[in-house]
Amino acid sequence: MAQVPNASASITSADVARLAGVSRATVSFVLNNTQAHRVSEATRARVLAAARQLGYVPHAAARSLRAGRSNLVLIPASASAIGGLVSSWLDDLHSELERHGYIAVLHAGRYGDATAGARAWAELRPAAVLALDGDRLTATAADVLRRAGVSALLAFASHSVAGVHTFSFDHTEVGAVAAQHLVARGRERIGVIMPSERGLDAFAQPRLAGAQGVASRSRATVTAVPMSYSRDSAAEVAQSWPGLGLDAVFAYNDEYATLLLHALQDQGITVPDQVAVVGADDLVPSALQRPPLTTVRLDLPSPALVADTIDALLRGTDAPEVPPTDAVLVPRQSS
Amino acid sequence: MAQVPNASASITSADVARLAGVSRATVSFVLNNTQAHRVSEATRARVLAAARQLGYVPHAAARSLRAGRSNLVLIPASASAIGGLVSSWLDDLHSELERHGYIAVLHAGRYGDATAGARAWAELRPAAVLALDGDRLTATAADVLRRAGVSALLAFASHSVAGVHTFSFDHTEVGAVAAQHLVARGRERIGVIMPSERGLDAFAQPRLAGAQGVASRSRATVTAVPMSYSRDSAAEVAQSWPGLGLDAVFAYNDEYATLLLHALQDQGITVPDQVAVVGADDLVPSALQRPPLTTVRLDLPSPALVADTIDALLRGTDAPEVPPTDAVLVPRQSS
Repeated sequence: MAQVPNASASITSADVARLAGVSRATVSFVLNNTQAHRVSEATRARVLAAARQLGYVPHAAARSLRAGRSNLVLIPASASAIGGLVSSWLDDLHSELERHGYIAVLHAGRYGDATAGARAWAELRPAAVLALDGDRLTATAADVLRRAGVSALLAFASHSVAGVHTFSFDHTEVGAVAAQHLVARGRERIGVIMPSERGLDAFAQPRLAGAQGVASRSRATVTAVPMSYSRDSAAEVAQSWPGLGLDAVFAYNDEYATLLLHALQDQGITVPDQVAVVGADDLVPSALQRPPLTTVRLDLPSPALVADTIDALLRGTDAPEVPPTDAVLVPRQSS
Repeated sequence: MAQVPNASASITSADVARLAGVSRATVSFVLNNTQAHRVSEATRARVLAAARQLGYVPHAAARSLRAGRSNLVLIPASASAIGGLVSSWLDDLHSELERHGYIAVLHAGRYGDATAGARAWAELRPAAVLALDGDRLTATAADVLRRAGVSALLAFASHSVAGVHTFSFDHTEVGAVAAQHLVARGRERIGVIMPSERGLDAFAQPRLAGAQGVASRSRATVTAVPMSYSRDSAAEVAQSWPGLGLDAVFAYNDEYATLLLHALQDQGITVPDQVAVVGADDLVPSALQRPPLTTVRLDLPSPALVADTIDALLRGTDAPEVPPTDAVLVPRQSS
């Protein structure tokens, strides 16, 4: 194994100042593009040349300490909770934020409660925190972040928290759209898959509530069915299916729906004749299942609009109008 | 939309010092657990109580500037390049690093060349950079990071770069294992899917080379077939299939393999009779395809061992022995 070299060789702004024959403060003014300080074009060119020659990269944290603000946008999200739908959206958001001069990082920590999470995020002193799962940004968590100087808090959430800029995203709607469709197709005993994986409850509970709301206004009943994202768990659920007496299932998302679809078929249970199956997210492979999977598509606001909103909040200018996330049924042959 | 409060309300270590009646330096010694400075238990308790009362969270970057080291472990990886296999591994790695007192963040930036990427990562002054895709840590990129003071560079890679601690991960093996299996089953005209998505070339090229190596030692030929991760692209490839005259395909990974499997079947091409299909990653749904998908499973080293290695490099102690990533064939009915 190769040896990692000692960090003592690292280049600092003092090295750049020495080579350019200017003060360290001048290096900082030039590299951080501080407008408040006048630096001649010749000096600026000398500093930039010295920085280039030494391979000096400005230090985002030091810059943020000096400037009193950071350019870090923190997105708390475990890697495994990010589905295929959100991942390319996140990549695009990253590019859009970069266009504004921000660095977006994903913080994958898993914390027992919202405040512990907020403390961990606050340690990095981001300029902004964007919670994809709004319920993690409770009022107390928001307070921890504000006290640490985080100046923009944003969340995709169904209801707003004081001081948090909310992109309306109602997971209740996802469950409601799925249940309405199943009721319209004459199904009356609807199972709703509840993933056992940690961190998904914040999405699964409102989806369940949405289905329950629809059921309460119809003849249908809703039964919560726990399942984890594994073939064994799907097989177990499928084996217990006849005893549950359910004629439809909203399976949390397309990934769980696909697993369950196959497990039901392996048990000789026909889809959609005996059980109608609905997923969510409209992932690429869902239309290719046999039968093709009915799903609920989520239309997220564009990454450019979300990045513009973060930038506006940090600059204290007016944030653009962002349309709410829509839940749209994509009916196919599995239901 | 709720208004984001002004950052001027943020609590600093000066506030903690004032409330505890100690100097700011003492607050720093206590909260950063600096061993070099003696602080009485009574003072320590007073500082901790004041910090708790005010809801003060230490500033990781400020701490790192003072201590001359950061506790940030940066993992460059676009969200969409992280497959189902790697995402839960990453979540576990995050927990293991946290156990050692490090914060792991994913940096999703997409950069045209390795050096531009390294500059962006260096701005955050991480203690360590772990590249899942070893080819992004070129010698020049490593140099940029070292000059910025990053003290541990690690990569999953097939060959080592000077100054980078390498976890052996040979994507050539993945392609070779797939091709050996197809040749052993009597296939002679093997297609290898090359994803058009940016950032996947670093994995796809060595996989192709591995298949070509096996073919060169047998009667088989290998043909690279470009495809993007969409139903349209898979359908196009399937439509062109008869003209390609291929009797087998190694489809980069299980996600592409699943798309292509369905697209081939939609064209009336039977799997495995007319075309044998092999994926990689052994994702959960792969065994549930009709026919179940043959795949190449990658056995990554345990997150605990990788976290221990990062910690050892940062402490300057001996790194543990980490077994290389193995590529293991999981034969099923698609081939």
